[in-house]
Amino acid sequence: MTDSLSSAMSNLDVSKHSHAAPSADAPWASQLPEGILPTKTLVFKPKAGKSAPVKPVVVVALESTDVGSANVLAKEIGIKEMRAAADDIWKDWFGADKETASPLTLSAQNAPGGSHPIFLVIDSAITLAPAGSRLAFHSSSSTESSSIPASEFTKYIDHLKVEQKTIDFVELKNKAPAPPASAAAAGGAAKADKAAAPARGAKLSKSAAVIDDAALVGITVRKAGDFSEWYQQVLRKGDMLDYYDVSGCYILKPWSYTVWESIQSFFDGEIKKLGVSNCYFPMFVSSDVLEREKDHIEGFAPEVAWVTRAGQSDLDKPVAIRPTSETVMYPYYAKWIQSHRDLPLKLNQWNSVVRWEFKHPQPFLRTREFLWQEGHTAHISLQEADKEVKQILDLYRRVYTDLLAVPVVPGVKSEKEKFAGGFYTTTVEGFVPTTGRGIQGGTSHCLGQNFSKMFNISVEDPNASADVRGTPQGRLHVWQNSWGLSTRTIGVMVMVHGDDKGLVMPPRVSQVQVVIIPCGIGVKTTPEGRKAIEDACAKAEQDLLAVGVRAKADLRDVYSPGWKFNDWEMRGVPIRMEIGPKDLEKDSRLLVRRDNGVKASIAASEMVSHVPQLLNKIHDDMYERANTEYTARRKKVTEWSNFTRELNGKNHVIIPWCEMETCEDAIKERSARSSEEGQDEDSRAPSMGAKSLCIPFDQEQFGPIEGLKCPQCQNEAKRWTMFGRSY
Amino acid sequence: MTDSLSSAMSNLDVSKHSHAAPSADAPWASQLPEGILPTKTLVFKPKAGKSAPVKPVVVVALESTDVGSANVLAKEIGIKEMRAAADDIWKDWFGADKETASPLTLSAQNAPGGSHPIFLVIDSAITLAPAGSRLAFHSSSSTESSSIPASEFTKYIDHLKVEQKTIDFVELKNKAPAPPASAAAAGGAAKADKAAAPARGAKLSKSAAVIDDAALVGITVRKAGDFSEWYQQVLRKGDMLDYYDVSGCYILKPWSYTVWESIQSFFDGEIKKLGVSNCYFPMFVSSDVLEREKDHIEGFAPEVAWVTRAGQSDLDKPVAIRPTSETVMYPYYAKWIQSHRDLPLKLNQWNSVVRWEFKHPQPFLRTREFLWQEGHTAHISLQEADKEVKQILDLYRRVYTDLLAVPVVPGVKSEKEKFAGGFYTTTVEGFVPTTGRGIQGGTSHCLGQNFSKMFNISVEDPNASADVRGTPQGRLHVWQNSWGLSTRTIGVMVMVHGDDKGLVMPPRVSQVQVVIIPCGIGVKTTPEGRKAIEDACAKAEQDLLAVGVRAKADLRDVYSPGWKFNDWEMRGVPIRMEIGPKDLEKDSRLLVRRDNGVKASIAASEMVSHVPQLLNKIHDDMYERANTEYTARRKKVTEWSNFTRELNGKNHVIIPWCEMETCEDAIKERSARSSEEGQDEDSRAPSMGAKSLCIPFDQEQFGPIEGLKCPQCQNEAKRWTMFGRSY
Repeated sequence: MTDSLSSAMSNLDVSKHSHAAPSADAPWASQLPEGILPTKTLVFKPKAGKSAPVKPVVVVALESTDVGSANVLAKEIGIKEMRAAADDIWKDWFGADKETASPLTLSAQNAPGGSHPIFLVIDSAITLAPAGSRLAFHSSSSTESSSIPASEFTKYIDHLKVEQKTIDFVELKNKAPAPPASAAAAGGAAKADKAAAPARGAKLSKSAAVIDDAALVGITVRKAGDFSEWYQQVLRKGDMLDYYDVSGCYILKPWSYTVWESIQSFFDGEIKKLGVSNCYFPMFVSSDVLEREKDHIEGFAPEVAWVTRAGQSDLDKPVAIRPTSETVMYPYYAKWIQSHRDLPLKLNQWNSVVRWEFKHPQPFLRTREFLWQEGHTAHISLQEADKEVKQILDLYRRVYTDLLAVPVVPGVKSEKEKFAGGFYTTTVEGFVPTTGRGIQGGTSHCLGQNFSKMFNISVEDPNASADVRGTPQGRLHVWQNSWGLSTRTIGVMVMVHGDDKGLVMPPRVSQVQVVIIPCGIGVKTTPEGRKAIEDACAKAEQDLLAVGVRAKADLRDVYSPGWKFNDWEMRGVPIRMEIGPKDLEKDSRLLVRRDNGVKASIAASEMVSHVPQLLNKIHDDMYERANTEYTARRKKVTEWSNFTRELNGKNHVIIPWCEMETCEDAIKERSARSSEEGQDEDSRAPSMGAKSLCIPFDQEQFGPIEGLKCPQCQNEAKRWTMFGRSY
Repeated sequence: MTDSLSSAMSNLDVSKHSHAAPSADAPWASQLPEGILPTKTLVFKPKAGKSAPVKPVVVVALESTDVGSANVLAKEIGIKEMRAAADDIWKDWFGADKETASPLTLSAQNAPGGSHPIFLVIDSAITLAPAGSRLAFHSSSSTESSSIPASEFTKYIDHLKVEQKTIDFVELKNKAPAPPASAAAAGGAAKADKAAAPARGAKLSKSAAVIDDAALVGITVRKAGDFSEWYQQVLRKGDMLDYYDVSGCYILKPWSYTVWESIQSFFDGEIKKLGVSNCYFPMFVSSDVLEREKDHIEGFAPEVAWVTRAGQSDLDKPVAIRPTSETVMYPYYAKWIQSHRDLPLKLNQWNSVVRWEFKHPQPFLRTREFLWQEGHTAHISLQEADKEVKQILDLYRRVYTDLLAVPVVPGVKSEKEKFAGGFYTTTVEGFVPTTGRGIQGGTSHCLGQNFSKMFNISVEDPNASADVRGTPQGRLHVWQNSWGLSTRTIGVMVMVHGDDKGLVMPPRVSQVQVVIIPCGIGVKTTPEGRKAIEDACAKAEQDLLAVGVRAKADLRDVYSPGWKFNDWEMRGVPIRMEIGPKDLEKDSRLLVRRDNGVKASIAASEMVSHVPQLLNKIHDDMYERANTEYTARRKKVTEWSNFTRELNGKNHVIIPWCEMETCEDAIKERSARSSEEGQDEDSRAPSMGAKSLCIPFDQEQFGPIEGLKCPQCQNEAKRWTMFGRSY
């Protein structure tokens, strides 16, 4: 049917994109080049008398758009009811099946007066697509897609003269308070998607990922099925962030920013005890300064954003936006540190840095601007620097274990993986069980004297032998550390704890720890009965706030309890408290845990003592569960033959390692090759090899290393080292 | 002697700059165009036998460089002692007097083997001057200066073949712990400067500004004499900030950043009580979004910094760095606010914004990047928005009065002075007594519905009459506020409280509230005696910390008590506690207040109860002093003939005003003209007219307005309005 296209608009710029066949773990969207937006085409049949002419409703939307309930949409366009169209409609109206039908298969026959008229609904997100982006459509081959410039889409549709309407689905969804999950199962778009899913799903192996009976307002894919889509849905539907019109940048909404504030509050208090002060350096760096440390900047140069213009004037010299602040700060350290009495100098800043990555961005994990803290300290001796590196790393560990309930493995990086220009790097390594990939959680670097020599940060050595006049001889370059922790922490937390219902928030960082929902109010409830319940909810909120629990009574009267349950589950609130007529009668309160769904009724009088304990228990349980999983997924391996098998089983692998860089390269290469044959490939990383993640500080747990050989190269092993695929 | 120049290097690019004759309030530096750095030329005569040949030391330095002690410099260049040269040397060696001698009057005769050899010391800051900048030298006329490109300076000097050495005066100063004020008075550069001062000083009327007997490590000018230079010295020597190699950007060191943290802590806690949540929006804005609200952006466009390149790649579309976030945030408000149940929406962010101003930058007051908070809220009604505007403004007032001990006048801005695109603007207005200029302290804007109409942020009006089906009719655009407070607060604090010795820190925001200094330790002190004193200092520190007082014992043994007194006075620590042998004997502690110098001895046992009270007393006294001054400098005027007289007396003027914009323009013009004739012109603002600063909320204090005429236009007065010159 491409004829219809060419007749409609012969100069339309259609590109073809070849790609691997989409799979559950590497879905279609991930196969497309950046700037090409995947779309979906849905077809509905309005309910009408047998004899009435059929006019299908075709919806063209961004794949990421939640089109909501079919019946809400139907009402919006003046139709009473409609449901997903059967195969014959697709064939008859578009000469294409569900896999291949797209706006490109429309023709003049679909216009009013044509043989097969339709009503076309266009997602407003398509009309708002960023300039320069393209829209991708499925074609008849699973390894090829077509795309057209987003800017030409409207013109193309106008050309076809089909009946059309543009709908803002976000607005539509919000207009009608969405029904809870159970209500949505009765039919509508969820079903339409499901009807469409098996056909395409068979090809995409996606059917397992779709959650049956999930309202489209909820999370529509399983964490284990389509992790990448799940992550994005959880973040957006859990109200953590919103997408932004500058690519690679995201809006941190209060629900996620609060987590960052909790981390800041803890970490800032702890580093102040260590004598660190906060300061602020400008975000701009001159090119001269930026390029001063060549080895170091080499790693950052391709990602540096440059300001070249202010207002209408070109700047004489472009200035960079800091990608990190070593070269920004150290010229001033050289100026400020004149004597050993100026040491130690311990400064930190909470700021944002910019790394204009061209790789696929991922919220919290890889973004062009991100929030972090960067500490930069200078010391008189290596010993003192060493000590601080470990103190800071332990604070990072505590952010994960004590606040986020996420287990991490502390250790030191291999030479290959250490910070560019540094002496050695320590790290806390996290683990995402669903993908089996590791994730660097935070790094504390000892820079040694590399930067102090480059920037000439030196003092007279107070311990050097003195000359005859008693003046010490010789200058000493200071020992430096730098350490950083970013909002990536939040991404790790979501990936580790979230489930098929959405976020699961660790209690200590959750903006709301207990949500209190009035229940059992029906048409027969008297006004007094309703008031009694609502008053009890409000009082519970006040009583809990008074003992330092972040409680919230959700008294919105337009939403049903079920809708509220869903809403707060998606946002991951640790405890839901339900108060209904029976609870009032028995003077009890029903508590439901988000992390494991366990319900318990407690006496109202126990609430203020019980809830804080329960929050701690939930924290401990969440940590224990994640830790048990992570521990089980660290496999000790001494034979190479087991290495890739365990890796492909989504585990980390601990080997007695020789610590040679050539061996590390070989491990990466051999594990990548093996995985290409592999049975259980990793989302987004089908052919990714393993790299060393860290050499754990706790070596004893793995037993003696003496006499062991490196399983890859058979050289003598030095330390047990953790390898794995990673983010 | 320009002949010598032309013979030395005929192609040197010398420009002439005409300007007004420098005066005490408009010093030379302020008369030069931006990018032209003023320099100074000092001449010293080494002490030598009568018969020894004379080889003067000539120092060429940036005017802002503190060259420190002449004898320290002498040692550094291998000379035993030297002092400021008398007139004859200037004449004989350079054929010029002190007013006109400069590097441009050097000649080949000053090279080794010439008739008048010299030793030239070059300030390393000159060799590090930013690319594109020029160096200015005095010439024989007080209304003309010469300049050459900074980049050619070294080449020019090399050409002359004079003996030379480049010195880093910052490093030099730090090498030798500087003597306290009294020691410096014995001779050295302070004296050399003083010797040179009268000659140039007579012309510049600067002698009154120079502080006799001040060590050059201290503040060298009087606040009342050369306010601009004083401000810069106080900030740098008080360790608040350092200059940065990107123009218009400054480093906030811990001493100032702590003030900002105190403000954050207070304000953040208060807005959270009002239901405001923090969030973070990206620093980048697409041009489409930025330019969406034309009136609003018009004010910012000339100052917007644009990122056009990342790594080596040009961006398809440049992105701007936010100058403020209205247009960044409001498209998302339109998306997030779908129903009146989503209101009020109250978000705040702590971030930095960039306004690439081309005017003369001034630390804290006018910088290209600055830190602030920006709150953006949306409400269902004007009434609710109104209420919040005033709540926030009152928090801004409390930041000034309760934390910074700075009086402000709260009020509303005139139509002309309100926020571009807003409905009305409220403000707290501060006052800098030394210059008589006002300064806007923080603004809380009601945006009305202007932005909500532009960005279509609307909800169904819950109060509109319903149609037959009970559905309310009609949409309502939300009412918005935005409010911001920046690090400008810190600049105001410094300008109001600082004195000729440096900073005077308000106790509640000072990183150190009490510094404890061991005294009376001399050569005769036994080791036990020394230890007893130092232990008492350390214990006092611990005891005070335990009751929440930020105390610090300064036990550095290389500095004398006098040096430490100076050092901490410059940094403005509110209380100095001295502990010496007699204090131990009497079990007493000597407390010295920074704000008024008052000393008091208290029993050691009273310390932990007395010090917190004293800190509060100091706060109250500082506020009272500043408030008394500000109140006395607000002059009620009802006759135009008094208006400019009071204004030129460095006062604010309160008039019964008509509130007409044409009248405001006329007032500005007439007060500017008058001041040109004026007797007492304002530094940096000789011909600046008065503008309306605010219409104070408290109108009653000025008496009834009924029947009064506007003194400028004779139309009926509406409200008492405060006019003044301002920053």
